[in-house]
Amino acid sequence: MKPIARTPGIDRRALLSILALLPALSAALLPVSAPAQTSTPGGLLPSWNDGAAKQAIFDFVRATIDRSSPSYVLPEDRIAVFDQDGTLWVEHPMYTQVVYCLERVPAVVAKKPELRNVEPFKTVLSGNREAMAKLSMGDIEKILAATLTGMKVEEFNAEAKKWMETAKHPRWNRLYTELVYQPMLEVLRYLRDNAYKTYIVTGGGQDFVRVYAEKVYGIPPEQVIGTAGGTKYAYASDGKAFLTKEPKLLLNDNNAGKVEGIHMMIGRRPYAAFGNSTGDRQMLEWTAAGAGARLKMLLLHDDAAREYAYGPAQGLPDTKVGTFTPALYDEAKKNGWTVISMKNDWKRIFAFE
Amino acid sequence: MKPIARTPGIDRRALLSILALLPALSAALLPVSAPAQTSTPGGLLPSWNDGAAKQAIFDFVRATIDRSSPSYVLPEDRIAVFDQDGTLWVEHPMYTQVVYCLERVPAVVAKKPELRNVEPFKTVLSGNREAMAKLSMGDIEKILAATLTGMKVEEFNAEAKKWMETAKHPRWNRLYTELVYQPMLEVLRYLRDNAYKTYIVTGGGQDFVRVYAEKVYGIPPEQVIGTAGGTKYAYASDGKAFLTKEPKLLLNDNNAGKVEGIHMMIGRRPYAAFGNSTGDRQMLEWTAAGAGARLKMLLLHDDAAREYAYGPAQGLPDTKVGTFTPALYDEAKKNGWTVISMKNDWKRIFAFE
Repeated sequence: MKPIARTPGIDRRALLSILALLPALSAALLPVSAPAQTSTPGGLLPSWNDGAAKQAIFDFVRATIDRSSPSYVLPEDRIAVFDQDGTLWVEHPMYTQVVYCLERVPAVVAKKPELRNVEPFKTVLSGNREAMAKLSMGDIEKILAATLTGMKVEEFNAEAKKWMETAKHPRWNRLYTELVYQPMLEVLRYLRDNAYKTYIVTGGGQDFVRVYAEKVYGIPPEQVIGTAGGTKYAYASDGKAFLTKEPKLLLNDNNAGKVEGIHMMIGRRPYAAFGNSTGDRQMLEWTAAGAGARLKMLLLHDDAAREYAYGPAQGLPDTKVGTFTPALYDEAKKNGWTVISMKNDWKRIFAFE
Repeated sequence: MKPIARTPGIDRRALLSILALLPALSAALLPVSAPAQTSTPGGLLPSWNDGAAKQAIFDFVRATIDRSSPSYVLPEDRIAVFDQDGTLWVEHPMYTQVVYCLERVPAVVAKKPELRNVEPFKTVLSGNREAMAKLSMGDIEKILAATLTGMKVEEFNAEAKKWMETAKHPRWNRLYTELVYQPMLEVLRYLRDNAYKTYIVTGGGQDFVRVYAEKVYGIPPEQVIGTAGGTKYAYASDGKAFLTKEPKLLLNDNNAGKVEGIHMMIGRRPYAAFGNSTGDRQMLEWTAAGAGARLKMLLLHDDAAREYAYGPAQGLPDTKVGTFTPALYDEAKKNGWTVISMKNDWKRIFAFE
């Protein structure tokens, strides 16, 4: 195993946007979710407007649970996978986990004072946001390694849980766990009510997301697949075994790594996949390559007023990491995947609205 | 990721015993499962004799499902893990998966004729059992890599499934899948009936065991944790995505690797663990290190007449791999783990008896 090369859930985009709250540009809207004849069971998915996206979800579920349907799927094979950042909750101005890591730096330095005058910790401690925005990928990886590893797994869980209970998003001044998308919570519940097993498949840290996923999404730890690090087994002085989080990458759960993670952790091809960026592309392609009815959904962030507008909504250039690129948008259109317009398809974004 | 270093489910012991059916020595019995007052619900675990082992299972379940018990465990936390080879089914004279790999060699060579005169394939093709028994660990790893990787995941599944449907164990002339231990099937069912989620945690290949685990043990693919290799994502000429098994190790699910696998794939500490060798030691220690009632069970193969006798039953020397060593036996006794005597605790071994 190669000693740390990549660390969980970070990319250039997160880095660049580290301190800059995005200006709320008016979205350059693309024609998504063309109006369609809708026939949706009343009362389900109440936060969704009628339209192609809502209809696609209903059609898929109906086709796969009806025993007389050619697309019927046995209950044990009903697997649905969801990206997290930008698909189930807000990912701007930066990934919540990166915020966590930056805020953990003082505690780490308190335990290891020798880091105080060492970069990149020195810059983070300075609070100089301009300098922080210039940190390199290598610097960010050092911060992630220092803040996410080196402690017992139970200690990590306790620390992350405590942080999640108080840390707030700067724009809404609300807990990050309140910034989950209400329409997606409804989809999760609707699928589970129809015997689908719902999984999170995230580029973020698996251990981090597991801390709150059961409470926030109703998804237990064993159904959270994420970027995963190794652990080290050892004995305490009383002879009891304990496990320490190590700076060693087991699974880089991004891009094709999401498919590798799904194969390793589930061992079945999903029937439904939800994402919002190029990091989810292969997961959707892999889902689409299966026989029968398969639901492929991409969330477009085109609502600067209620959330953010980025990606195709702003005509951003094609980049390799983490965004909903025009190329991905074209692939979705070409292959009949469904693009969800946050602005048009969602009646409300958050439960607190 | 280091290119292939270790390959799934093989150790020196399997190699050495490759062709020698163990002589059915009379077991030098150790005093396991001392007689105890038993109070067991009638009709449950019918293939178990009354005794300390059966009682330990009942006591554990009762203590963890009774809401008024100080050891009560919430249903979502009820995790039970089982080693496979030698714990759920026969592992002698060699691991079933190794038999599979050796028997796959002709098909691999047919596709890659250049291997015909290359070792170790030449030796395997020769059918010379004495020469095969002398193959080195490196040779065996080459055979595993050649026979378990390089094909689409669906191709591997189809091939392994087909083989399992006809391949037979030389001693009983029965399908390998018939050589599962009936008493353990009853434990799996009993735990599941009490809301325990049952997992296989095997040093064997994860993909291999997943092929039959649902049918044979009632354990779905996503609850099989094993030694896991990487996969490669690519596109067919029609543009469809496919996944190929690669000779790259993601998880070596043996020894402390079993704890790492449990942390990665489940993210919760088990309440019950069943094993039979040093490869399961850390998994049992990790289970034991949790608070409350924890069930730690080791199966002793002391029944040469009905199955095999090896490990402490034969006073084998302490070795590092794969066996139930005297040191492990001492650890079990010292820490109050329960040793199951196949000879004394099991009324019958197989369903067909």
